[in-house]
This record gives sequence, C-alpha cells and structure tokens, in this order.
Amino acid sequence: MDVLVPFAAREPKTRLADVFDEDERAALSREMLADVLDAVRNAGGEPTVVATAPIELPARTVVDDRPLSDAVNARLEPPVAVVMADLALATPAALRALFGTDSDVAIAPGLGGGTNALVVHHPEFYVDYHGASFRDHREIAAEIGAEVETVDSFRLAVDVDEPSDLAEVLLHADGRSATWLRRAGVRLVVEDGRVRTSRR
Amino acid sequence: MDVLVPFAAREPKTRLADVFDEDERAALSREMLADVLDAVRNAGGEPTVVATAPIELPARTVVDDRPLSDAVNARLEPPVAVVMADLALATPAALRALFGTDSDVAIAPGLGGGTNALVVHHPEFYVDYHGASFRDHREIAAEIGAEVETVDSFRLAVDVDEPSDLAEVLLHADGRSATWLRRAGVRLVVEDGRVRTSRR
Repeated sequence: MDVLVPFAAREPKTRLADVFDEDERAALSREMLADVLDAVRNAGGEPTVVATAPIELPARTVVDDRPLSDAVNARLEPPVAVVMADLALATPAALRALFGTDSDVAIAPGLGGGTNALVVHHPEFYVDYHGASFRDHREIAAEIGAEVETVDSFRLAVDVDEPSDLAEVLLHADGRSATWLRRAGVRLVVEDGRVRTSRR
Repeated sequence: MDVLVPFAAREPKTRLADVFDEDERAALSREMLADVLDAVRNAGGEPTVVATAPIELPARTVVDDRPLSDAVNARLEPPVAVVMADLALATPAALRALFGTDSDVAIAPGLGGGTNALVVHHPEFYVDYHGASFRDHREIAAEIGAEVETVDSFRLAVDVDEPSDLAEVLLHADGRSATWLRRAGVRLVVEDGRVRTSRR
C-alpha cells in the first residue's frame, strides 16, 4: 500500500506554543513523523512524505508547497492511504486494520472531527482537510456514490495538536515521541478527572 | 456476558456545569446511560446498573452508595464486564469486540488515562478507578500475574466528561444523547483546529 504522509516542514504544531518553543516543536514533530513512518512500514505500507518545504528525512520525500488538500489530491491514485504525521500513538496493528479495508473509502476519524488516516480505493474521491473533514469526507463520498467505512481506533484518533494530547503519548506510546517528551521534562499529572501534563 | 454499568445517580457530570444546569446534567446522563444500555444489550451483554442512590431505570438496578471502586469490586465475579455509563459513542460492534476477548483482563482505555470499559476473566483482579486507572489496572494485573489486553477503540475511548466531548457525540453518535444535545441547542462550531460546540 502506498502511503502519503503530509508533513508541515515550517512552523509545525503552533497550538503547542504554550509548552514548547519553535525549535522544540520542530524537533517533536520530527520524532512523531519518525514514529509514524516506523508504524507505516511495520504495517506493510510504503510511505512517501509530502513536505511543505525541502527537508532531509529518512524516507522518500516530495516537496509541495500548496495547501494540504491540493498537495494530497495531486497524488491520490488508488489504492492509496493518507496518514497524518502526528499520530504518535499509531501502531502497526491499527494501521494494518486500516490498510486491510476494501471499502471505496475507509476513514479513521480524529478527535474533534478531523480525518487522521484514510484509505482510498475509489478513483473519484478527493480530500478536503479544511474544517470538519470527517463529515466533509463522508459527504464527498456520498456525492460520488462511494461507500464509506469508519475505522474505530483510539490509536489513530489521537493526533498531537494540543497540550492535553501530550498525556496520551506518555500514557500509551513508547516510541521516539514519548522518549523526546520525557527528556524535555514533560510529566504526567494525576489529579481528579483526566490526566494532564506539566513541564519542569 | 454480565455487564456492570456504574451510574452516579446524584449530581452527575459536574465538569459540564459551564454548559448545563444540574437538572440538564441529570437528564443528559440518563440519555447516555440509555444509549449505553442499548449498545450493551445489542452486543449480547446483560447489564446491571450499579447506582449510587435509588433511581427508576429501564434495567436491572442495584443500589450501592460506596465509592465506585468498592461498589464494582463487590460484584466483580468473572467473567464480567464493567462499562461506564457515559460512553455515548459506544456501538454494539465496539462492545462485542471487547466482550469477545479472552485475556485475563481486557481494557478499553479512555481519554486522559481512564478505564472506560473492561472485561475480567481473572478471579483475583480488582478495580481502582481513582487517578490514572488505565495505568493502575495494568499494575494490578501485573501484581497478580494476569495477562492484559488493550482494546483499541475510539468509540470506547470517549467518555463524556468535558465540554469538548460534546462535539464527539454530535459528530459520531445518533442515539438519544445526540438527540438530547441537539434539542438542548448544542451545535457544532467549525473553525480552525478541532470542532467545538456552542449552545444557543
């Protein structure tokens, strides 16, 4: 399975600016990408990173500075998967289940209505990541008469965008992203309700 | 499969106090419980609600006013499942996958380190819902030599505790909880980043 992995090479993860400075956010985003690439390969996928700017990466990389949806649609030749670069909890098992679907379109939703990963078998399908993309992708599929399957995975639902997501990485992942976070002094804080993180 | 469904009959969902008054929170928690009971039954489970106070419910109900963990442990006779009452996204398919596990202990983690659902086959296992219970349950299992399986499900990972969780219900559920939220004027707000909700 060919797998596109879009990657923001410039100023990634701005919603983590309260926790990390710009260099740190760039470093963390690289660790997460490396974790995703490992999981994709171990699930039998052949990743191509679609980067917004020239960057040295341990994977086949193409540069496309257009908006995310345009850059992906230019390469959406079925069968193909698209997996976001910030799925630090992704496991080979979760991706294998996604890659193994045979519906026209299979979507792994992200927290807050996003589309964290999808597999496209239908030649007319196209992506639109702006806004509530999970809903929009279902509508696009309906318009072209494509059958949609939703893949139910917590590990694919957590993209690391906001500070509360860091807790999920420390709780459930043991790859480079989790190691980087621990070295950066990020720790779990257990109080009432959901576990949070703090940085010392 | 016998399924315990703990239910806070008094002052539920205090973390939603910014959105709903006390009566509304009680009503929403009842709708979520009804959705969970439907999903449990459709997955082949036989639910028993463990309520903190006497309450009229459309299911077999026992009253136990002790803390959650004590009330559950008093009834934890394997094979048995425990499913939280606020899993408004739970589907029969997700619960069937959980109920079908045959490990000593199978855990479906919740956002923020919780334990949203579990199946117990090991006679010495006990629950401790205080704090980061996903981690604690793994430790308890290790102490008694029980094998643990983690069930990867987004639909079981979302418990409705915080305002951001309401968006997940409107995005992914179509049961009584989603209907109740819509009638209460809760709407999706699509901006940059994750979809949120507002109430008019």
